[in-house]
Amino acid sequence: MTVVLDHSRNGVDTQQMYGTLDAIKAEPSLGTFQFRARNHWIDGAHNRSTIQGFYGAGQEDRSRAHAFSLDAGEPAVLLGTDTGPNPAEYLLHALAACLTTTLVYVAAARKVRLTEVESTLEGDMDVRGALGLSDEVRNGFTKIRVSFKVRGDASPEKLREVVERAKARSAVFDMVTNGVPVEVVAD
Amino acid sequence: MTVVLDHSRNGVDTQQMYGTLDAIKAEPSLGTFQFRARNHWIDGAHNRSTIQGFYGAGQEDRSRAHAFSLDAGEPAVLLGTDTGPNPAEYLLHALAACLTTTLVYVAAARKVRLTEVESTLEGDMDVRGALGLSDEVRNGFTKIRVSFKVRGDASPEKLREVVERAKARSAVFDMVTNGVPVEVVAD
Repeated sequence: MTVVLDHSRNGVDTQQMYGTLDAIKAEPSLGTFQFRARNHWIDGAHNRSTIQGFYGAGQEDRSRAHAFSLDAGEPAVLLGTDTGPNPAEYLLHALAACLTTTLVYVAAARKVRLTEVESTLEGDMDVRGALGLSDEVRNGFTKIRVSFKVRGDASPEKLREVVERAKARSAVFDMVTNGVPVEVVAD
Repeated sequence: MTVVLDHSRNGVDTQQMYGTLDAIKAEPSLGTFQFRARNHWIDGAHNRSTIQGFYGAGQEDRSRAHAFSLDAGEPAVLLGTDTGPNPAEYLLHALAACLTTTLVYVAAARKVRLTEVESTLEGDMDVRGALGLSDEVRNGFTKIRVSFKVRGDASPEKLREVVERAKARSAVFDMVTNGVPVEVVAD
């Protein structure tokens, strides 16, 4: 008799996942990461970030052969030429991506096989803040709404628990809801 | 004698900029915007957002002929296959892009011609939070550092003022430093 051990669930290698968790539990300093981006202005609202190296798991990670390149822009109504999503839209994507990946990892750990995860995000902004026309409205979104559709081999209740756990563990959800100290220096 | 009126500064049409500001001043409801993203899970840490329509300036904006598509991922050490920048890196890009565009617009309004704007960003994270290994560390970055290099036809002091004003008006800087209420629903 052949027993096939499938170590993958939701595209996550669960053997590797438990190994990673055990390694960091045994040596907490392996959990120290630093992520980075470099950005340069091109013209008007068009600028580009390159993202490649990072520090993590006790060393400078050099596994990425090429840098990722991300172009930002603004639509015409906000004085750009639509060279990419605008920065606020990138923030929505960061939030969607982080909640989704966290949800997928949580499901893998809880033995839930997912078949579908979709989300739609909306952020409300009064641009009078960012345009300097009003000090009574904030610059950023006043509110973000995230609506998930999650399907898998578990009860609706269990799937909702997975979403709740994703909220409780997502790095970007934490940052967007609680804020992060940002130091800006210029030369 | 021919007088050439150059309405562009830093790639920003300043005539259009002042027109937009005047229009929103006269009718504040034109400042109401809603930005959106749709995300779907592909496999493991790989998911993709599409970004196209938004509401703003009193109407549903349909100026984008195509959707932007953004792929997220995680490097191998974080259990992915490097299908794109990770969500926290996307957040750094959103912050860099927003500070840069705001800086470029502020400079255009203040008659400063920029020649170079570059920034490097670093975010420190103890991944034991997001991995559920510790309740004593937060999930997201504990700190973000942004370092700008800004060059143009103004004094270093004036250029630093432009950076300060960009911090004071950037939508994503506001959101990342102060946080935003996020509502998550799942079905």
